[in-house]
Amino acid sequence: MPNYQAEIAACSQAVRDKMPFTPSITNVVTVNLVANAQIAVGGRPAMLYLADEGINMVQACDSFYINLGTLFPSHREAVQETIASLQASHKAWVLDPVGLGKGADHNALIAYIKDHPATIIKANASEIMTLAQTWGLISQETEQNYVGVDSRHEVNQAQAAALALARHSGGVVVVTGQSDLVTDGNRMLYSLGGSDWMEKITGAGCILGGVMAVYAAVAQDPFIAALTAINAFNLAGKQADGAKGPASFQTQFIDRLYQNSAREVSQIPVIEQGEED
Amino acid sequence: MPNYQAEIAACSQAVRDKMPFTPSITNVVTVNLVANAQIAVGGRPAMLYLADEGINMVQACDSFYINLGTLFPSHREAVQETIASLQASHKAWVLDPVGLGKGADHNALIAYIKDHPATIIKANASEIMTLAQTWGLISQETEQNYVGVDSRHEVNQAQAAALALARHSGGVVVVTGQSDLVTDGNRMLYSLGGSDWMEKITGAGCILGGVMAVYAAVAQDPFIAALTAINAFNLAGKQADGAKGPASFQTQFIDRLYQNSAREVSQIPVIEQGEED
Amino acid sequence: MPNYQAEIAACSQAVRDKMPFTPSITNVVTVNLVANAQIAVGGRPAMLYLADEGINMVQACDSFYINLGTLFPSHREAVQETIASLQASHKAWVLDPVGLGKGADHNALIAYIKDHPATIIKANASEIMTLAQTWGLISQETEQNYVGVDSRHEVNQAQAAALALARHSGGVVVVTGQSDLVTDGNRMLYSLGGSDWMEKITGAGCILGGVMAVYAAVAQDPFIAALTAINAFNLAGKQADGAKGPASFQTQFIDRLYQNSAREVSQIPVIEQGEED
Repeated sequence: MPNYQAEIAACSQAVRDKMPFTPSITNVVTVNLVANAQIAVGGRPAMLYLADEGINMVQACDSFYINLGTLFPSHREAVQETIASLQASHKAWVLDPVGLGKGADHNALIAYIKDHPATIIKANASEIMTLAQTWGLISQETEQNYVGVDSRHEVNQAQAAALALARHSGGVVVVTGQSDLVTDGNRMLYSLGGSDWMEKITGAGCILGGVMAVYAAVAQDPFIAALTAINAFNLAGKQADGAKGPASFQTQFIDRLYQNSAREVSQIPVIEQGEED
Repeated sequence: MPNYQAEIAACSQAVRDKMPFTPSITNVVTVNLVANAQIAVGGRPAMLYLADEGINMVQACDSFYINLGTLFPSHREAVQETIASLQASHKAWVLDPVGLGKGADHNALIAYIKDHPATIIKANASEIMTLAQTWGLISQETEQNYVGVDSRHEVNQAQAAALALARHSGGVVVVTGQSDLVTDGNRMLYSLGGSDWMEKITGAGCILGGVMAVYAAVAQDPFIAALTAINAFNLAGKQADGAKGPASFQTQFIDRLYQNSAREVSQIPVIEQGEED
Repeated sequence: MPNYQAEIAACSQAVRDKMPFTPSITNVVTVNLVANAQIAVGGRPAMLYLADEGINMVQACDSFYINLGTLFPSHREAVQETIASLQASHKAWVLDPVGLGKGADHNALIAYIKDHPATIIKANASEIMTLAQTWGLISQETEQNYVGVDSRHEVNQAQAAALALARHSGGVVVVTGQSDLVTDGNRMLYSLGGSDWMEKITGAGCILGGVMAVYAAVAQDPFIAALTAINAFNLAGKQADGAKGPASFQTQFIDRLYQNSAREVSQIPVIEQGEED
């Protein structure tokens, strides 16, 4: 197995050095947390909700983050126009498809994204499986109801769906859970670690997507960007694990995300598919 | 006086066991805090702003929270459609009418809700009195100007208004303040405790409404749900009361909301009307 | 040089005594932080996004804060109508023009504000220079691209632009950075202090604008309001400077904003233009 430590350390350090500009369209529940987490690792966030601002920010950006939570009526146009611009300018972007099955605008955006794929898709196991089914990439096993933020499936149940999505999109897919799976349709790794507190705060997944967009701004290989984000995230989570409650955890987690060096971020163990089976 | 401790402990424990799905339409100022407080006591939040998402989430939900702060143009349709769905499916919902008199859309929604009443209405004394006057349930004593989040009245000044609202709506009314009044138009109790810090952070009332919706998802009797939420809230507030400032208080308060057991939550004293007069 | 300590202490104390009503139209990223910071120093916030709510809240308010981050489609009308009402009722308001060059609605609002100037404009050096150029008050030195929240210029590079803006608007201009410049087109002072952590959290500038609006509600002279806000802000920042990370800093900063007395706030040194050159 290749040693990804050097690439992860380099990716983490490149963000600290370059401070990439990483705007987002993201939900209002956790927008503050996403911005603070992006700053903590070295990115420069800007949040927006209008189509022409999306187009303009794509011109100026190093990468983009799109999270489909808390849609407003203006999201449909704003998200589509932003994605079209990202595709035209060949810039990296990360999708968090949160809210699958929530309503018509969400469905329309998911349909649009099938043909305009993200560089990295990050979601939990249930979301990844539903997305692959919705796009007709794997057979329909479950009803297409609303898929909440709490996954009803284990990460390794979503392996086939993740592979199918990665091959369809030509990008990287991340499945989050007790361990986190990363695949580009060819390579597949698991990152271990993190903290159970993640499920006790709102926005852990949103943060991870936002931080992933920051690393995707500097990495040639989005597989390395995804691994680096997961490692930075899981390391900070583990360090903050001793918190007395969810709000203390969140404070310590953001503090740690800021403090950790590139070398430390690269130390979280990753294992190849099969090793944990 | 009946001993509500057993019912409160049972309601609190039922939420921990069932983890009900409790979506909200709530203001953007405190939406993150509402979600985190709901998770802390055992609920599963989902926030939304579109009408069809409201209708869909009502189908999936165990209860709903509607808070009328920071209205967008899309709220009018979204809130009305969501409430109509809640009524059709006989699901419990909690109203925080915050922002009374703020503008035309707020007025229209309040008028609509008169005929489609909430299971629980939670507000401060000034808001409860204004709401009862606006709906013609008590005589007009004050001008119908904007009613801010800071109550100009004491809780027990709002007793008649609270009773009138509860009888009109066939539900429960909660008046928050130094002590908190709960009535279903028949029974009336006060819960003592809490913390003065509540007035020094934005969103204490929003949290309480959100947490009340979580307990309303499992309680047969909304009176018990309201009491349980107030007790959980006041206990955590009292425990965090030694904080050095408002931001520290908020962190400790959410931590405590998470830590407290069902038994502890049931220990906050409640007294019958008249005892404190 | 006049001794501003007495005026600053009086302004700070007047806010604690009067608790002015200080509504805002402000971005969703930091809206919670702005509300908490305003409460911490003694204001009473209310956030809104609809035009008629803006008009109504202007009638009830003591001052207003307008921050142009995260525009929605409804902002264009809401912001213009609110500003027109503020002008008609001669009430003080603070502008944070954040997002210059981001898109068409932002440009339209900036053009409108040229003819309906704010009592206080607060921005970083790059933003102040771009604003003065956009309004044709100083010669065009830089391209009119998007200006992010991270200033590419030092505060004293923006002196001429700040003076030009203050003279055009007949109000006060604040340029934030390592030191903070305040001018009314005649007087010019620098306030020293603060914390480097300010750049590591989102919303430090938003908070400052919101707190400035609170002081502008009670001060006859907006120059004193601006100085008081900067001093309150820099004192709390300095006190929280020992934090272990950005999230801890934010908590300690809000706590300190609440704790500091009017006398303490007046102790931060201010120096006249030229002294630091």
